[in-house]
Amino acid sequence: MLELIGFDGDDTLWHSEGYYQAAGTQFREILGRYVDVSDRHVQDSMLATERRNLALFGYGAKGMALSMVETAIALTDARIEAHDIHRIVQLGKAVLEHPVELLPGIRAAVEAVAAEHAIVLITKGDLAHQEKKVAQSGLADLFRRIEIVSEKSEATYRRVLGEFDLAPAQFAMVGNSLRSDIEPVVRLGGWGVHMPYHVTWAHELENGLDHAEPRMLAVEAPVGIPAAVAQLCRQAAAVAVAG
Amino acid sequence: MLELIGFDGDDTLWHSEGYYQAAGTQFREILGRYVDVSDRHVQDSMLATERRNLALFGYGAKGMALSMVETAIALTDARIEAHDIHRIVQLGKAVLEHPVELLPGIRAAVEAVAAEHAIVLITKGDLAHQEKKVAQSGLADLFRRIEIVSEKSEATYRRVLGEFDLAPAQFAMVGNSLRSDIEPVVRLGGWGVHMPYHVTWAHELENGLDHAEPRMLAVEAPVGIPAAVAQLCRQAAAVAVAG
Repeated sequence: MLELIGFDGDDTLWHSEGYYQAAGTQFREILGRYVDVSDRHVQDSMLATERRNLALFGYGAKGMALSMVETAIALTDARIEAHDIHRIVQLGKAVLEHPVELLPGIRAAVEAVAAEHAIVLITKGDLAHQEKKVAQSGLADLFRRIEIVSEKSEATYRRVLGEFDLAPAQFAMVGNSLRSDIEPVVRLGGWGVHMPYHVTWAHELENGLDHAEPRMLAVEAPVGIPAAVAQLCRQAAAVAVAG
Repeated sequence: MLELIGFDGDDTLWHSEGYYQAAGTQFREILGRYVDVSDRHVQDSMLATERRNLALFGYGAKGMALSMVETAIALTDARIEAHDIHRIVQLGKAVLEHPVELLPGIRAAVEAVAAEHAIVLITKGDLAHQEKKVAQSGLADLFRRIEIVSEKSEATYRRVLGEFDLAPAQFAMVGNSLRSDIEPVVRLGGWGVHMPYHVTWAHELENGLDHAEPRMLAVEAPVGIPAAVAQLCRQAAAVAVAG
């Protein structure tokens, strides 16, 4: 049986990646005044700088803003003017300030799952920003615990499950990222409900999952989550009996 | 009786503020090429921008770097050159990259307290940076739990104590900041061991504590912590008996 269901935050409960991508678009417009951004060079350089900086900065809009400033200075050979750098800093602030918009139908879906199971929110990113989003979401009270983590690795999920004294087979994670929400959980022996978001950060696309991963179900929208959790629950029970 | 002892991280277990102040010094050197930094204007403007940004950025070196970039652009009327802005970003990265240096004697002090009490680490700041410092400190295994929080308010301490099912009177916090480590805890009815660090960020100096706060003891160095905790333990027991 499934004893605990985890939910991801960004792009699962509320919109997020769209704000980052809008910032990226405006960043390329600013840079376009100095360099030719029509080829892939600028995007590749941005992603390369961002990845190099991830280990140091962690996830979130502040690290993105600092990486954009670094990239802009490097790509323009330091020709970029200070007022344009100020605009880049403002792009990061705008991401931090955007209002929390829940995905349509997610509140009903979370409430339906919470009526049957203990649920936890496991979200990754900037501590202050994630806390603000959790508070503004109005969903906080539904969750047994809220875990804001720096990385969603197998070790992270193992720690959270350890605190609940549960085995991975008793846990399913609902989220939009195969890399962060699904792969580490199924590798541990848990279960996953994958709900793709309409845009995905390149970094989150990388994963080593099999397309026919039997411990994962995919849903198109929040309305499908409760039934998918119920189906995984039956599968988990069948495995437990067979085992 | 005291059932749980909390330890702060930055400037209590390991050096931190010195790195921030060194970054501030280098920042003023960079700015000095554009504006007169001999009066208090630059420092005041920096602190004002940093405070305005705290609600948005939270604590830590990334927010500091972004605030310094903003301040530099504003104070120079956008005359600052991109390569100097790059140097400012590097100041933030240097703070994130500094090695963890434990305060002399802190390991023995923490071990002595841990031999008598359950201990937790309650530290504030950037999630990724704090996790790295905790890991590098080599002290992580001594703590029952490690809480990285965005703000050390009464609500934060109430939540942590709630998770341990303890009343504030059963808890003492050891730290260098009257504002963050001591005041909220004694206001809740807990106890505090104040160990001042040789430098303190202006923001952390503000507090509403009485100089003769009876629920707090001050120590000069880590070697004094175990005895101070033992003395508070006796005071807490006396209060409990009297109550």
